[in-house]
Amino acid sequence: MATFSEPSALRRAVREGVFDRPTTGQAGGFLQGNLAILPKKYADDFLAYCVRNPKPCPLLGVSEPGERRIEALGLDLDIATDVPFYRVHRDGRHETVSDLDELWRDDFVSFVIGCSFSFEESLQRARIPVHHIEAGRNVPMYVTDIETRRAGPFHGRMVVSMRAFSPADAIRATVLSDRQPLAHGAPVHFGDPAVIGVRDLRNPDFGDAPVLRDGDVPVFWACGVTPQMAIRNARPDIAITHEPGFMLVTDVPAEGASIGI
Amino acid sequence: MATFSEPSALRRAVREGVFDRPTTGQAGGFLQGNLAILPKKYADDFLAYCVRNPKPCPLLGVSEPGERRIEALGLDLDIATDVPFYRVHRDGRHETVSDLDELWRDDFVSFVIGCSFSFEESLQRARIPVHHIEAGRNVPMYVTDIETRRAGPFHGRMVVSMRAFSPADAIRATVLSDRQPLAHGAPVHFGDPAVIGVRDLRNPDFGDAPVLRDGDVPVFWACGVTPQMAIRNARPDIAITHEPGFMLVTDVPAEGASIGI
Repeated sequence: MATFSEPSALRRAVREGVFDRPTTGQAGGFLQGNLAILPKKYADDFLAYCVRNPKPCPLLGVSEPGERRIEALGLDLDIATDVPFYRVHRDGRHETVSDLDELWRDDFVSFVIGCSFSFEESLQRARIPVHHIEAGRNVPMYVTDIETRRAGPFHGRMVVSMRAFSPADAIRATVLSDRQPLAHGAPVHFGDPAVIGVRDLRNPDFGDAPVLRDGDVPVFWACGVTPQMAIRNARPDIAITHEPGFMLVTDVPAEGASIGI
Repeated sequence: MATFSEPSALRRAVREGVFDRPTTGQAGGFLQGNLAILPKKYADDFLAYCVRNPKPCPLLGVSEPGERRIEALGLDLDIATDVPFYRVHRDGRHETVSDLDELWRDDFVSFVIGCSFSFEESLQRARIPVHHIEAGRNVPMYVTDIETRRAGPFHGRMVVSMRAFSPADAIRATVLSDRQPLAHGAPVHFGDPAVIGVRDLRNPDFGDAPVLRDGDVPVFWACGVTPQMAIRNARPDIAITHEPGFMLVTDVPAEGASIGI
């Protein structure tokens, strides 16, 4: 299957059911987003949660209630069809669907939250090895003991992703990631995992086991799974997210991006 | 004795013999420089050495032969009088003088090389504790096993300065220092000192013993002592530098500085 360079072409292929793979590596240079859809009665609190926790929850866009478009992210973008697979969460269980046409409600508010794909792209362009990508694995993720700032029913501990580098590459990765605040920005920690409550680096809570080489230092970034945990903790009657790895691809250039919500 | 906020006022006080202290903390927000003066026959090679090693030797300015001014660094600036104390190196020995009026030669070329003072200022503005400053000590410096790139007779190993931080502050210090390439930029290493050939962190080669607290990570930056060692290795018949700590204060704003040599 082809690689798409234009976000709108990729979204069209997703909408038409032609593209159904993970979105990593697609539409290089453009921001991809985590999706969270909540009924309006939860929206103000969740917005406050994102604003209070900008490192795990960098907001790319928020829709009007019932509105399937967020024009700042792409004129043609349709939130209900342009993600390959959605997770519909109800009562602590979830099912997977490929579009939201039948489920859509007039009170749904959509939140699009930055993810780390564009930052990993800039590492690769800088010839910094990203071990889990080279090994064909998912990035390892860990629940820390860092409490996020609560907003209404939304709360929980910060989830981090981990990438390991030589010290020299860790410095470059720190500097490069800081330039992409909408892709989680600079790391939150490096070195001893116990300092942030991670007990067993070999056994992540999500994703695949890490690749660590001699002399590597683990570096930890805030992760977009954090808001998903906060939503689970808030127990809304319904919430819809993307299926992990299947992101919403936007028209926003990853470098020098600035978003007015 | 007063603190000067204007670089030109400080330089005037130095020139008139009124100011004879280290320049740290003076003229906040403006770049200070290491000074190296060499006869013209060495100048091309030393210029090449600086250009090939921009992290230890970020060039702020180079004079024409015999010229005591570098206008880009300050219209009134006089290289031969505006540093509190100079070191005159001859035959492996040095003497200290307070101006160069009598020693000045028509073939002298002056090089002004960035130093870390303005970067330390930005750490302090960001409320990142800088242990050696709080303890009233000089920064610890170490000769590494990293060979710099040779140019003609100029060569030698890189000297680094060390500051220790919590991991979270080390990340912020890395990002902040990267924004000041003329003050040595981002670190060259952190963590295990042995990786860069530093055997005993407690016993620096220059400066004072380090302050290290529980959980601190040592972070290493390229240091302006590197070009001094390269000059020593080149054995010119004469070379003049500043007395350590007594820098040339320029009119160049530290943040967003851009210099056309």
